Amino acid sequence: MKTISENKCFGGVQGVYSHASAACNCDMTFAVFMPAEAAFGPVPVLWYLSGLTCTHENAMVKAGAQSWAAEQGIALIFPDTSPRGDGVADDEAYDLGQGAGFYLDATQAPWAAHFQMNTYIARELPALIGENFAIDMDRQGITGHSMGGHGALTLAMENPGQYLSVSAFAPIANPTQSDWGQKQLGAYLGAGDHAKHDASLQMAAVGFDGPVLIDQGSEDQFLNLLRPETLAQAMAARRQEGQFRMQKGYDHSYFFVASFIEDHIAFHAEAFYQD
Amino acid sequence: MKTISENKCFGGVQGVYSHASAACNCDMTFAVFMPAEAAFGPVPVLWYLSGLTCTHENAMVKAGAQSWAAEQGIALIFPDTSPRGDGVADDEAYDLGQGAGFYLDATQAPWAAHFQMNTYIARELPALIGENFAIDMDRQGITGHSMGGHGALTLAMENPGQYLSVSAFAPIANPTQSDWGQKQLGAYLGAGDHAKHDASLQMAAVGFDGPVLIDQGSEDQFLNLLRPETLAQAMAARRQEGQFRMQKGYDHSYFFVASFIEDHIAFHAEAFYQD
Repeated sequence: MKTISENKCFGGVQGVYSHASAACNCDMTFAVFMPAEAAFGPVPVLWYLSGLTCTHENAMVKAGAQSWAAEQGIALIFPDTSPRGDGVADDEAYDLGQGAGFYLDATQAPWAAHFQMNTYIARELPALIGENFAIDMDRQGITGHSMGGHGALTLAMENPGQYLSVSAFAPIANPTQSDWGQKQLGAYLGAGDHAKHDASLQMAAVGFDGPVLIDQGSEDQFLNLLRPETLAQAMAARRQEGQFRMQKGYDHSYFFVASFIEDHIAFHAEAFYQD
Repeated sequence: MKTISENKCFGGVQGVYSHASAACNCDMTFAVFMPAEAAFGPVPVLWYLSGLTCTHENAMVKAGAQSWAAEQGIALIFPDTSPRGDGVADDEAYDLGQGAGFYLDATQAPWAAHFQMNTYIARELPALIGENFAIDMDRQGITGHSMGGHGALTLAMENPGQYLSVSAFAPIANPTQSDWGQKQLGAYLGAGDHAKHDASLQMAAVGFDGPVLIDQGSEDQFLNLLRPETLAQAMAARRQEGQFRMQKGYDHSYFFVASFIEDHIAFHAEAFYQD
């Protein structure tokens, strides 16, 4: 693991690191915020998965999350959204290939050689983080924005017990029925049943053993692609513990994420500290 | 005035606008955050002047200021750092020309035709803002980072009564004695006495009729260029009302600004609301 940068931030440290990923078969970059409390013992951690076109950097600089993580004594991890590099397959569309990994393990050429983001986020990176940072890996939560909301919800439901709480900002909620999903699931996984990669279908099938918080802006320019109504229906039908909040007037931008990140971090902190 | 974008943000609106500037003789872009309280009457305003290479956008997305401005019911203005465009003079150095206006009115060719940032920030833009936004121009404060800290301090001291309070993050504090200053003051203004454009010399000569707050990181990679000790000495020698804070371990980045922006906004709010 190589340190790219470390900056003091809200009494803690905002770092950026890279490492050779076995899962993705390339170098991967990620960011970690460690609160001051980590000097006295392992702290709980919230994963933040970003959306299409983002890297580890967008949320690290635009979401305003460190302020609230510092207040709650929680670490933050900002992974990249896909493998990257000259030798890594890509597509000219912004929503396929590099920057658009969809947090799944590809099975189809040319993607399968590197696009193993599910294994990377749920297995390889937690192991690396657990070895190198004062983080209590028994207290993990996960959140994300847009494609990252899809990732947070599907990973949380696919790995019972791994995350104590899950939340999402404007998640891609029903990708099997959306242009943000059908193309990508087909390309990465081929034909077949993609229900495991659809948060609404997973909510209907298995749900999440813990609290769920979803925020969605009513003026989101991508509502037709996100299909939040499908997830809201599935959550209510399952009697899922949690909240689905429609935030009047907010759009899909980081201004929306920043406006509600305090609530999300407090929500995860409650799950971490009540156990 | 043209609206480029408006996003709901912390219950208010983060907008970006452009207009034809008479002072700078080109189109200029600026950002304004209006808190929800503005719907009920004019609100006080804090100007945020950015540093070298920045546009209106950097602090708008990276400083985390809107959260605290919303809490205090204060508007924020993020101007650009210089005139820009194909017809505007520039230099290949990052610290001269476009992105490096130094908040002064140039008198020398080729700069004088457009680089009138003092008039723009202190006269033209306030008039435009006062006409188009529910802002109480009798309650203005000003802050800034690095070159913007220099701008905030020199504009505040040059215009007694215009700003109720002034603060700065890692300001260029003594440009007449620094490579961040000597080259630019010479290019923009020619030879002569540049004391009016040096915050430390102005502090020694006239001071500020109101509270001053300065934050400086002890691990700032540009300490030798910023020369904070000169300003600290001048403030103390004048018995200037205010605080100079050396923040241990912080560097020159936006992580430093974000870590202390809450304090700065609370500082200005106190000045706005006690009057």
